[in-house]
Amino acid sequence: MSTVHFFDPSIQLGHGAGGRASRRLIEGLVSPALGIWGPSELEDGAMLVVGDERLVMTTDSFVVSPRTFPGGSIGELAVNGTLNDLAVSGAAPLAISVALILEAGLASEDLYRELEAIARCAGAAGVSVATGDTKVVEHGRGDGLFITTTGVGRMHGKAALGAGRVRPGDAILLSGAIGDHGMTVMLARGELDLASESLRSDTRPVWPYVEALLDRFGPEVRWMRDPTRGGLATTLNELATSAKIKIVLDEGSIVVHDPVRGACEILGIDPLHVANEGQFVAVVSAEIASDAKALLRSLPGGDEAMVIGEVEAAEIPVVVAVSGYGGSRVIDMLTGDPLPRIC
Amino acid sequence: MSTVHFFDPSIQLGHGAGGRASRRLIEGLVSPALGIWGPSELEDGAMLVVGDERLVMTTDSFVVSPRTFPGGSIGELAVNGTLNDLAVSGAAPLAISVALILEAGLASEDLYRELEAIARCAGAAGVSVATGDTKVVEHGRGDGLFITTTGVGRMHGKAALGAGRVRPGDAILLSGAIGDHGMTVMLARGELDLASESLRSDTRPVWPYVEALLDRFGPEVRWMRDPTRGGLATTLNELATSAKIKIVLDEGSIVVHDPVRGACEILGIDPLHVANEGQFVAVVSAEIASDAKALLRSLPGGDEAMVIGEVEAAEIPVVVAVSGYGGSRVIDMLTGDPLPRIC
Repeated sequence: MSTVHFFDPSIQLGHGAGGRASRRLIEGLVSPALGIWGPSELEDGAMLVVGDERLVMTTDSFVVSPRTFPGGSIGELAVNGTLNDLAVSGAAPLAISVALILEAGLASEDLYRELEAIARCAGAAGVSVATGDTKVVEHGRGDGLFITTTGVGRMHGKAALGAGRVRPGDAILLSGAIGDHGMTVMLARGELDLASESLRSDTRPVWPYVEALLDRFGPEVRWMRDPTRGGLATTLNELATSAKIKIVLDEGSIVVHDPVRGACEILGIDPLHVANEGQFVAVVSAEIASDAKALLRSLPGGDEAMVIGEVEAAEIPVVVAVSGYGGSRVIDMLTGDPLPRIC
Repeated sequence: MSTVHFFDPSIQLGHGAGGRASRRLIEGLVSPALGIWGPSELEDGAMLVVGDERLVMTTDSFVVSPRTFPGGSIGELAVNGTLNDLAVSGAAPLAISVALILEAGLASEDLYRELEAIARCAGAAGVSVATGDTKVVEHGRGDGLFITTTGVGRMHGKAALGAGRVRPGDAILLSGAIGDHGMTVMLARGELDLASESLRSDTRPVWPYVEALLDRFGPEVRWMRDPTRGGLATTLNELATSAKIKIVLDEGSIVVHDPVRGACEILGIDPLHVANEGQFVAVVSAEIASDAKALLRSLPGGDEAMVIGEVEAAEIPVVVAVSGYGGSRVIDMLTGDPLPRIC
């Protein structure tokens, strides 16, 4: 076992928020205890080579509160989220498992509705729910419904993805607007004196976009990730650290819908830190960046895809955003915990 | 979607106990909502054919209370339980994923201890923890630590298992004593005015036994299952229903350790309904039954393996136990809920 370097005496909500505290927990305690080393093993999906097949396995627990919100619910997230982790690993989905932890007292119709959502999303992605499990805990020992989904996928034949493939000069491609999911869930809690008629979660499968990119551009697509907990800022900081690069974002090119921008301003949250469920960010070679953006924009729901920045060589990994006025600021990972239980 | 036939307005603890109420929930609500039909799809593991490979996928959430007990803990169960589901499906483990739902306030050292147990058990089984996820919920919205593990395995080349392969005349082979796990956990709760110095959970991997049987006897092994929640009685009733057979047990040949038998008598519980974590039950052809028992007994920890009964043709599926005095009784599935959160 490698050395533990996590000194918080107990687990707190911030350790689950997806930002710096989560990373400390994973890198400082979970990975050493499990005997896992190296950042590559902290990726969202693990590759399994079986015979001649390259498979990808990924798992996620979903604890979102509230369970339903405009544009989606825990059941949809549980399928789309896990299939999206496969997608950004370059894998088409083969099968998904569903493990339920129910709290005694959960209304049967609420359970049925979420199971239907699971079946609908799996069906839309062309994947079967292969197997499952159901446990029940006493009232007060859970929170209605937790869902853990695990996906197994088959790597796209042309996929060659990894932080190690990212090079200075590469472009950063973003599939659409950011922050819709996280802000929708936060407002749906009703704890803030804010509401928006037009805000909806962006939950959707990203595999159709990813598959189109890989079919056409193959290894010119270097790296992909879905910026969920911790938002785009955290995801890009993790990339900068893994690849030892500087990422320069053109802040004006990042689409943020008005209700998200407004709510972020009122709450003092950077939209770059807000979770997304139906977006992905890719590093692609500069040569294909413009064509890749055009390809995404030609697909339904891809009309807000943008090239948002580029990769530069760096001594010290960093993410910088340049504003329309030419000023620049360092974009850090999410710290603290404004956004618990967003997925 | 097929028709829902589950009319309980809400989920209760008994729906998670593994017996009749669990079956009603799964068959009446979960499977129809997910669009899954037929008993074969309710097996513990699902087969995925990928290229030339026969893979098995299985998932389980672990919510055992208390988290530690004599002989084991939730981390060990989470690995052994999922790998055992692979094993009784005939699959050697390839990889396991670990998804954690932590309750805010969980002591970091408790988490570390369970992660170490996960690593130890995975290492002992020769399987890597491929990927994982960590979520945190508010204090009072969880119960310390829930663990969901998903296993992917590769089917043994000689495995040809399924309830459809069971034939009248086949023998029922049991790997060892029953009830140790469930009774240990129940007593560890401290709610009963009972204690036993010698009682320990039986949690262990069963793959070494299964692999030895398949290596030597191949398709003469017809069917296997690990009798966890709901105990041996529930598992055999499920087999009887699936295979449309009568199972006749020689009750005197089923090993029940004295502390388990004593506690069951005091509590009015049938040992056949108590959960096991380190045992499996197999249907094998009559020709090899005695050799199969001898093979298990030749392996470390297999010295209590027994042939406990046989399969007969039947119009109506049923499990019957014959006592040493020649009397017989029908053995039903677990009904009611004396045994929640045992795994």
